[in-house]
Amino acid sequence: MISVDEARTRILADLRPTPAEIVALANAWNRVTAASVVARLTQPPADVSAMDGYALRAADGTLGATLTQIGAAPAGHPFAGTVGAGQIVRLFTGSVVPDGADAILLQEDATKDGDRITVNEAVAAGRHIRRAGQDFAQGDAVIPAGRKLTARDVGLAAAANHPWLSVHRRPRVGILATGDEIAMPGEPIPTGGIVSSNSHALAALVRASGGEPVVLPIAADTKEAVAAVADSVLGLDLLVTTGGASVGDHDLVISGLQTRGLVVDFWQIAMRPGKPLLFGNLGAVPVLGLPGNPVSAMVCAILFLVPALARLSGLPAAPPPATTALLGAPVRQNDQRADHLRATVGTDAQGRLVVTPFPVQDSAMLRRLATADALILRPSHAPALPTGAEVPIVRLDSLGL
Amino acid sequence: MISVDEARTRILADLRPTPAEIVALANAWNRVTAASVVARLTQPPADVSAMDGYALRAADGTLGATLTQIGAAPAGHPFAGTVGAGQIVRLFTGSVVPDGADAILLQEDATKDGDRITVNEAVAAGRHIRRAGQDFAQGDAVIPAGRKLTARDVGLAAAANHPWLSVHRRPRVGILATGDEIAMPGEPIPTGGIVSSNSHALAALVRASGGEPVVLPIAADTKEAVAAVADSVLGLDLLVTTGGASVGDHDLVISGLQTRGLVVDFWQIAMRPGKPLLFGNLGAVPVLGLPGNPVSAMVCAILFLVPALARLSGLPAAPPPATTALLGAPVRQNDQRADHLRATVGTDAQGRLVVTPFPVQDSAMLRRLATADALILRPSHAPALPTGAEVPIVRLDSLGL
Repeated sequence: MISVDEARTRILADLRPTPAEIVALANAWNRVTAASVVARLTQPPADVSAMDGYALRAADGTLGATLTQIGAAPAGHPFAGTVGAGQIVRLFTGSVVPDGADAILLQEDATKDGDRITVNEAVAAGRHIRRAGQDFAQGDAVIPAGRKLTARDVGLAAAANHPWLSVHRRPRVGILATGDEIAMPGEPIPTGGIVSSNSHALAALVRASGGEPVVLPIAADTKEAVAAVADSVLGLDLLVTTGGASVGDHDLVISGLQTRGLVVDFWQIAMRPGKPLLFGNLGAVPVLGLPGNPVSAMVCAILFLVPALARLSGLPAAPPPATTALLGAPVRQNDQRADHLRATVGTDAQGRLVVTPFPVQDSAMLRRLATADALILRPSHAPALPTGAEVPIVRLDSLGL
Repeated sequence: MISVDEARTRILADLRPTPAEIVALANAWNRVTAASVVARLTQPPADVSAMDGYALRAADGTLGATLTQIGAAPAGHPFAGTVGAGQIVRLFTGSVVPDGADAILLQEDATKDGDRITVNEAVAAGRHIRRAGQDFAQGDAVIPAGRKLTARDVGLAAAANHPWLSVHRRPRVGILATGDEIAMPGEPIPTGGIVSSNSHALAALVRASGGEPVVLPIAADTKEAVAAVADSVLGLDLLVTTGGASVGDHDLVISGLQTRGLVVDFWQIAMRPGKPLLFGNLGAVPVLGLPGNPVSAMVCAILFLVPALARLSGLPAAPPPATTALLGAPVRQNDQRADHLRATVGTDAQGRLVVTPFPVQDSAMLRRLATADALILRPSHAPALPTGAEVPIVRLDSLGL
């Protein structure tokens, strides 16, 4: 058995970011840039007013002065002439400052009487003028490669005049559930059987992590049925299996796929829930085999599949983001298997995060998993800890997982 | 001018959650339930084994006992007979515990010799058996209404045998940019003009918040052009405008839409950036008018549009989630307008969050906004604070905004 960290390192070392594709700016939110976004223009393109008001020569803008309005420059309609001594031009936020002017008189500091404008507050040269290129200049790399685009980034790419962006293709992740006992929701359930939940939870997790799930038909519990899946993996960036990987008579995923060339890297990890975790390669396609228990499958997916999807998507590959909280109940000493306790998160009277593990941690209790706010990370051989001790946690709610 | 909190309260009071629609389970991730999800079966459906091993009578499972295997019960293939004295049945994780058996002998605690199984570790009655209904029972409401579905929830809904779910329809949000000076990315730019960024950033923000953006054609700076938009709002849950709402000659959104029946609730807020914020109703459609400056528009969208989308989506409507951090640089006393300083977030040597405002807070600097990690919330008349003081912040990165 290898450690969680070593397993993750070996998985990530085997994965490469997907190639680039071009998407419309309107579809680029939450995608990962495959190239830096370089500004195609300078912003602002010229010196512009930061306020509604008037453009004039600073020397003319003394308290009490009265100037002659010679024109107006609404945004998008620059004033073509030059502002001379004693002259003033109406403008608005974003209007280009006309030639000759070097100061802005704010609208609220002016009195207008026909074309006569009186200065009620002295101006300062350059004040309220946004200089050309203050935001960015043509040729600037305004967004780096490998960034998951936020709404703000999309706005910035638009301002830099990009109708299309080069992003990493969404990783295509095949999801294979195995087992004679499972049925799809709404379909007839075999005697003694249950409804498949893992493939649906994993498909959602793949979506939440920027991937494209490909849910394969459920494979029966025979070597041949599992082996036949090898024909479905062409074009996948990763194959995820659930179940059939435990010790015993039913380690069908390994034996079935080995008949089609599966090379196993490792298949046991010192962790709980989820010891039987498989990683290997089926030709060019990496294979991640998750346990069949729904809770084990999801915990392993959070620890390994989410970072794998980050790596495939072109993002930095890292463990799931951890923070710390104070224990709301004591925890026992841990054995050699790193544990991941399902827990609720609240705050104490001082506003500090408090994490309280569920008293029962059964790996088949999906309902409890769904109501958990966090996993408490318990390293191998971690000592017993009292209420109030600080522990590392992974928040689940904020990740959409 | 009214306060940020009062403005948000008035906006949210005017909005109602969208009606329900039915979506396939495979499309339900991140949608908001319009009805509770009630389990259609009991899980597990019968007492099942939590481990790979053998089912037997607890009384027979003493150290050194040897029993006769009378059959096997792979998951999905229950054993039809009854386990009698001295008998044992092979089973696996998830297998139904056969009649007569009340204990599980773990596979690793057994020695198998043909059909003779020797007990190497005494069993305990009931141990390693998951009782019928341990996870949930038919008729249990396993997911409440008004919950944004996580990947775990999707798995739970599957296990509860739901191929379809009732969710709130995605709020349809019209986005209207106004201005003679703006062009869509890649299109010819008018003299003195700029590329539109607000509608793209806002469309992405609407997506990030679970809505469906409807980007309307840019309206020219005339009352008539703005008024014509009234014909486009049918079927929208909200109309968002940018620009044209400032004081001065260009408050076209109000005057344009008033010719078509706009009722203005308020249109100025004591905040920075973004004083000119409009809220009203155009017939049945609420109208939120954001400032034209890109930074002001996004800050106002985070403070008002994101909560509005939550309310429309059927979620609890609340201010954007705030946390606290320590100042990395001093901040000045604030005036009566609540301020929202763009800032970076890091950690100090003790691992505490440190937030450092950008020295220049110009509301046209989109590139700087895009690199900000957080907004520092500065209430009206907040006192000057030194480096190290604790301040409330809204993190932007984690929201995809």
